[in-house]
Amino acid sequence: MKLIRFGKLHHEKPGIQFSDTRIDVSAFGEDYDENFFATGGIGRLTDWFKINQSTCKVIDNSVRLGCPIKKPSKIVCVGLNYAKHAAESGMELPKEPVIFFKSTTAIVGPYDDLVLPKGSNKTDWEVELAVVIGKRASYVKKENVFDHVAGYVLHNDYSEREYQLERGGQWVKGKSSDTFAPIGPYLVTKEEIKDPNKLNLWLKVNGELKQNGNTSDFVFNIETIVSYISEFMTLLPGDIISTGTPAGVGMGLRPPQYLRPGDMVELSVEGLGISKQNVRASE
Amino acid sequence: MKLIRFGKLHHEKPGIQFSDTRIDVSAFGEDYDENFFATGGIGRLTDWFKINQSTCKVIDNSVRLGCPIKKPSKIVCVGLNYAKHAAESGMELPKEPVIFFKSTTAIVGPYDDLVLPKGSNKTDWEVELAVVIGKRASYVKKENVFDHVAGYVLHNDYSEREYQLERGGQWVKGKSSDTFAPIGPYLVTKEEIKDPNKLNLWLKVNGELKQNGNTSDFVFNIETIVSYISEFMTLLPGDIISTGTPAGVGMGLRPPQYLRPGDMVELSVEGLGISKQNVRASE
Repeated sequence: MKLIRFGKLHHEKPGIQFSDTRIDVSAFGEDYDENFFATGGIGRLTDWFKINQSTCKVIDNSVRLGCPIKKPSKIVCVGLNYAKHAAESGMELPKEPVIFFKSTTAIVGPYDDLVLPKGSNKTDWEVELAVVIGKRASYVKKENVFDHVAGYVLHNDYSEREYQLERGGQWVKGKSSDTFAPIGPYLVTKEEIKDPNKLNLWLKVNGELKQNGNTSDFVFNIETIVSYISEFMTLLPGDIISTGTPAGVGMGLRPPQYLRPGDMVELSVEGLGISKQNVRASE
Repeated sequence: MKLIRFGKLHHEKPGIQFSDTRIDVSAFGEDYDENFFATGGIGRLTDWFKINQSTCKVIDNSVRLGCPIKKPSKIVCVGLNYAKHAAESGMELPKEPVIFFKSTTAIVGPYDDLVLPKGSNKTDWEVELAVVIGKRASYVKKENVFDHVAGYVLHNDYSEREYQLERGGQWVKGKSSDTFAPIGPYLVTKEEIKDPNKLNLWLKVNGELKQNGNTSDFVFNIETIVSYISEFMTLLPGDIISTGTPAGVGMGLRPPQYLRPGDMVELSVEGLGISKQNVRASE
């Protein structure tokens, strides 16, 4: 199943997508939040939809899509999880996963504009496969990780490299600006993805291919990442774990290339749809 | 006014504290969450309480207190914000504020146990003054910062130094374990604190004074910190900004001293009450 949320920012309603058709399921009476995932909401929604399908409205494809998860408690990102990306960043391959947070206020929909922070000179792109937690996870063993996964989403982990690397301290500073986390178009529930550790992913800027990788190149696979993070914090249903980006970010180019107003970024992870952001200056 | 929340973990109800008397205000019909702060809840509660005071129940002082804010969207912490603490940590004084996140799943009440993470050898204490945001903050000027502040709380920013500093990558790993953020006993609304940049704060372990400082020793004061953070991310009502810890943490002692099961930690910031955590092993 593919879960979507549609409508104005912060006022989205829940829906389901079938190939190109989007269906309004707000009559189900729940949104895709922590409680939904924690209480087996995907199963309940599936059952409800079988009975109520005929009365659900089709949504026009011109309606805005939002992030398919409502108010996740956190976004945990994994850094340097593809060997070539670590090399292009001038950093050593980590011995254990590098993790950092991204403010949830950065979340927007998959086709919303990327707004450059005021005075930003080095805003960069990062296509990533993100895992959505379905069940509370604390000290979870690798072999049980998928019991705690609800599904997968496409994420562009936008990063301001000057804020991240040249302003002192921790990376979070360069990861958390508003609009820096376009998520979606949809959450694909886990049974639809045969092997999340073997998915193509790519990103284009103004139509030019910049990133082109496969999650089989992960330094640490999904079982390792989720198990590892759960040793250091409790993951809640709806939480988003972004698994790192392959080589080809702007910082790694010679000379480096960063985003400018008018640029258009398009990206995809196999099976998770395509998202697209137009870049604009702050107002 | 002093806002408290009381009752079982994740099922707390709102209250108000007057000297030693705790009053149940759950009949007000709101909890102290993002919406409460965003919509002038403190003023509405004040007005409501004037009319309804006589019908409010007194809470027994044996009832558990929780964190006085319900589900803040994030905890942003400032690192190395006291010169002597930077020195004892073997780190340089930062040129601009160092910020990092702490998972909100670490939040507990002020008298709850500190549970040592499994296998932890280096769990350390950090008494901190924390600011609670009252109004959405993005690119806020220093002179307007207090318009965006709801009040202040006492926070013990527990830190696992091995996870933070020896496991690769970013500090968040050592800051986010369950129970690592005891907050409270109460949120003191801003009009009760004359100058937050001039408050004594102290912490004792087993009755022995370990930290004893004053926020006047801040490297970056509250106006600077909140304004600065708001350049890198949007702060939401209810968000917690923890302003850093003075010298005297366990890592800085020679030899270093870390917490062990049976230890008792007690701490205070002037005007914000005293909190106390018993240390125990993970079950």
